[in-house]
Amino acid sequence: MRRAPAFRPDWSEEPPPAGSFRAIFKYGHPSGFKHPSDAWYAMLKADFGLTDEDFRARRNEGREAVVLTRPPVLDARQVADLTAIVGPHNVARDEFTRARYAHGKTTEEMMELSCGVVREIADLVIHPRHKEDVRRIVAFCHAEKIPVYVFAGGSSVTLGLRPVRGGITLVMGTHMNRFLELNEDNQTARVQPGILGPAYEEALNQAPERFRARRRYTGGHFPQSFEYSTVGGWVVTLGSGQASTYYGDAGDLVVSQEYVTPAGDFKTLEFPATATGPKINDLMKGSEGCFGVLVEVTMRVYRHMPANRRHFSFMFPTWLAAVEASREIAQGEFGRPAVYRISDPEETDRGLKLYGMPNLVDRFLRKRGFEPWQRCLCLGSVEGDRDYTRLVKRKIRRIARRYGAVYLGGYGSRKWARTRFREPYMREDLNDFGITIDTLETAVTWDRLMDLHRGVRNYIKNRPQTICMAHASHFYPQGTNLYFIFVGRFANVDDYRVFQAGIIDRIQRRGGSLSHHHGVGRLMAPWMEAHLGSFQMAVLRAVKNHFDPHHIMNPGGQLGLDLDPQQRRTP
Amino acid sequence: MRRAPAFRPDWSEEPPPAGSFRAIFKYGHPSGFKHPSDAWYAMLKADFGLTDEDFRARRNEGREAVVLTRPPVLDARQVADLTAIVGPHNVARDEFTRARYAHGKTTEEMMELSCGVVREIADLVIHPRHKEDVRRIVAFCHAEKIPVYVFAGGSSVTLGLRPVRGGITLVMGTHMNRFLELNEDNQTARVQPGILGPAYEEALNQAPERFRARRRYTGGHFPQSFEYSTVGGWVVTLGSGQASTYYGDAGDLVVSQEYVTPAGDFKTLEFPATATGPKINDLMKGSEGCFGVLVEVTMRVYRHMPANRRHFSFMFPTWLAAVEASREIAQGEFGRPAVYRISDPEETDRGLKLYGMPNLVDRFLRKRGFEPWQRCLCLGSVEGDRDYTRLVKRKIRRIARRYGAVYLGGYGSRKWARTRFREPYMREDLNDFGITIDTLETAVTWDRLMDLHRGVRNYIKNRPQTICMAHASHFYPQGTNLYFIFVGRFANVDDYRVFQAGIIDRIQRRGGSLSHHHGVGRLMAPWMEAHLGSFQMAVLRAVKNHFDPHHIMNPGGQLGLDLDPQQRRTP
Repeated sequence: MRRAPAFRPDWSEEPPPAGSFRAIFKYGHPSGFKHPSDAWYAMLKADFGLTDEDFRARRNEGREAVVLTRPPVLDARQVADLTAIVGPHNVARDEFTRARYAHGKTTEEMMELSCGVVREIADLVIHPRHKEDVRRIVAFCHAEKIPVYVFAGGSSVTLGLRPVRGGITLVMGTHMNRFLELNEDNQTARVQPGILGPAYEEALNQAPERFRARRRYTGGHFPQSFEYSTVGGWVVTLGSGQASTYYGDAGDLVVSQEYVTPAGDFKTLEFPATATGPKINDLMKGSEGCFGVLVEVTMRVYRHMPANRRHFSFMFPTWLAAVEASREIAQGEFGRPAVYRISDPEETDRGLKLYGMPNLVDRFLRKRGFEPWQRCLCLGSVEGDRDYTRLVKRKIRRIARRYGAVYLGGYGSRKWARTRFREPYMREDLNDFGITIDTLETAVTWDRLMDLHRGVRNYIKNRPQTICMAHASHFYPQGTNLYFIFVGRFANVDDYRVFQAGIIDRIQRRGGSLSHHHGVGRLMAPWMEAHLGSFQMAVLRAVKNHFDPHHIMNPGGQLGLDLDPQQRRTP
Repeated sequence: MRRAPAFRPDWSEEPPPAGSFRAIFKYGHPSGFKHPSDAWYAMLKADFGLTDEDFRARRNEGREAVVLTRPPVLDARQVADLTAIVGPHNVARDEFTRARYAHGKTTEEMMELSCGVVREIADLVIHPRHKEDVRRIVAFCHAEKIPVYVFAGGSSVTLGLRPVRGGITLVMGTHMNRFLELNEDNQTARVQPGILGPAYEEALNQAPERFRARRRYTGGHFPQSFEYSTVGGWVVTLGSGQASTYYGDAGDLVVSQEYVTPAGDFKTLEFPATATGPKINDLMKGSEGCFGVLVEVTMRVYRHMPANRRHFSFMFPTWLAAVEASREIAQGEFGRPAVYRISDPEETDRGLKLYGMPNLVDRFLRKRGFEPWQRCLCLGSVEGDRDYTRLVKRKIRRIARRYGAVYLGGYGSRKWARTRFREPYMREDLNDFGITIDTLETAVTWDRLMDLHRGVRNYIKNRPQTICMAHASHFYPQGTNLYFIFVGRFANVDDYRVFQAGIIDRIQRRGGSLSHHHGVGRLMAPWMEAHLGSFQMAVLRAVKNHFDPHHIMNPGGQLGLDLDPQQRRTP
């Protein structure tokens, strides 16, 4: 058997044309690409029964210039007054800019934009220079009942940035992106909300050079969107970083916050802990722009000691063994790893193929009884003090061995760490050839984990020709998250939406949270009422009414606060 | 010089008479006593310029039977309807019971009760049997606009239990004190709110015997009030235990809660983490009975491994050295001790005298340059996995040495651990002879700690003949708490109140939190508006209005929610 001569699809290497739909939905840097590997390509053809012929021509690339049919609805005086606040250079009304800041990175948005479909846009895009601008803008919009949307990094995967009711979008990343203060005594960093992950982390890592600090620091927060998400965005959507098992989730990292709301402005106090009643500082976390605009935030930071980092990876014989060992590790009271991930059998075996496990290793594993589509990969790293990282890694190895795992060294984890922020680049390549890759995630207690994984996976796999890979990547003594990656071909976006809704239904029915770290946005909003219950939703609405009596802050579905009963979904 | 023949005051050993004022304010078990040692007695005489003569006769012991001048104001139908809900055995209207459940353990309450003064009482004391009782009672009181107060362990030191507006008091500890479920997979415990510390901890420690569990567990929460406080009380007042540096504060331990409120009932979901918008589960923590009644709570628990516990104690040369070493320990990223305490110089030297440091040790310390009234004692213990506790103790020793400390072994810490819950018993003894001992506490970031300590201490010490001992006992990377113990003689309770208010003013002016773990109650309430700011207070009031539109839940000052402007204090 000779292999067919190599054919490789013409994955796009052209930066999207300026002003095009593709310039809006393309992930990451305009000329940054990470194409599916040959192994990926082979897998797609095999799984979907496709041939090279199906990859001859790209379709629906969205390279056309954005043209909107909907004119702005703000009147000329309103536009003039808003423009006067920030100056004409900080206001945009052109069609591309309005469309650009109306979208995040939700798969549905990519699918529609690639076909030239734009549904919801703001009338005016404003780049506030500082919190005083925000204050004046919000006060004006409150008085005039103009909807206010907030755009920071733009990495939302929950339709969280859609200006459903028009009005204005505030872009926080343009000017309000400064690192304001490092407090070494308290190990805190005060920043503007629009600072991107790399700028934030770089300032902390370079603290001696930048601030004459005694030490280097890390923010400890590395979501997959790290390069294109902001500190403010992490906080208001309750994000989690890949090292959250040690450093905590975004909400845990917040010391204090300053907000501008229609009801007024405030800053919470900075204490290591406090028992002065219910904490408004906590209440604002996850508010997703519905209560007000985050204009400054003080975060906990940690000592940066990369030389002490220790990587590890294991193969477990089964998913159950991987889960049980991981629970033992999370509950072991010996400290915690920073990154810790376990992949289910499908993710493990596809991953090994896709990322090139040498045949030698595969043969070794099979011989030892680690069977394909049963075995599960675990990888991670420990951070902190040198002796601590040695201890924690040793403990993890010991527990993993007890559950039948074989140690595979640190190479897999290091390789994962190097490429971890590049994965999202692939999705446009696939979309160009009619293949959709997307993810949904949940949090779940240990006692429901196996059942939830099975239930959601069964649903996804019952659809013909659909890939479903899952991993758990954020660990707590009480449970973990599950992150489902699915790949399939869909007739159109509505076909896709129906399938996606079915997954969310299953997650909820099996006792998973609607979201572990993606937030709610408008994607999860229809499920919120059934999920939290009407009583808790009513509390959120009461808080909303207090902060924002005219409902100008991110109206139109966000968090499910203002959905009509018929827009709600019962799983 | 011959010492005078030993005289020892006649510290009371009589249990308070049934039905007496003393039966209300006496701490702990009726026949439990821990008297001031001879060393304490000698110190009091010396510091206050007193002689044995001043300790010949006790005064204002409050041994009289409680007689109230205020009759109940609920009408007969209301009493009958409420009685019908729980049954006549679970309702009390007698004067003693009404007075008993109207008080906590605030020093002012002891001072007044010992003189037979009762200010605020409920009309009816009700012992609900289960959450359905609570539901019906709250609904009835909501309809009839009857104030509802909640009493659990009764250990409030913030006037948190005072039924200012009359109405009813619900006693949660009588029936609603059950341990409902241990979930070993999730390491959670579901309990009724009225379960006392020892019953809760005992059930967890004895999990194999009680629940056929695979392991033993601990709640990790040991406030000084442990024996007389409840799990529900810990949560709704945001308490902290003495091992909080490792296990976290009460708020951190909560997984989910169930509440009955005038607006309805709800239970929050159980997830290890979740990103579904602002968390009502967090909002309820610290609500101090103002939003509703906590009827069930699920807490995180931990593996109980007492054999691995390692104790340590050190002497630091100065307060500054102790603080800086402690910050280094809290920020060191090698794990954390469970108990960790540093005493300031006055507490250190008084403590050494009071708790009997051998002269040999004192001579050794002086020779090494650890001078009285400069040196600072540090003690604590590490819990968790065996190798982890070894590592953390070793790290702490190394850091302490770097800051000039001498290691004193584990004896001091073990001794402290054995007697730690007995200290409050002394206060009635002192009060019997006109001496007042009380505490105030705060939380503060590292950069304000030295200044706050100095400022508050100066204020206290500027009062003639006043003892001021302080320690920090709950550590975070961002700061710690300060716990001030002061002892003095006051002409009357008003004299005392003026002095106490001055301390709170100083705490606030120097950037401390109004409360680290005592909660707010009515004691701190007047400062709340200035502390949190009117904007945050307005948010709390909006939430309050939603849960409790008729303001029946714990009305009359609690949390400062319903104070008139003239009742507020600006420090």
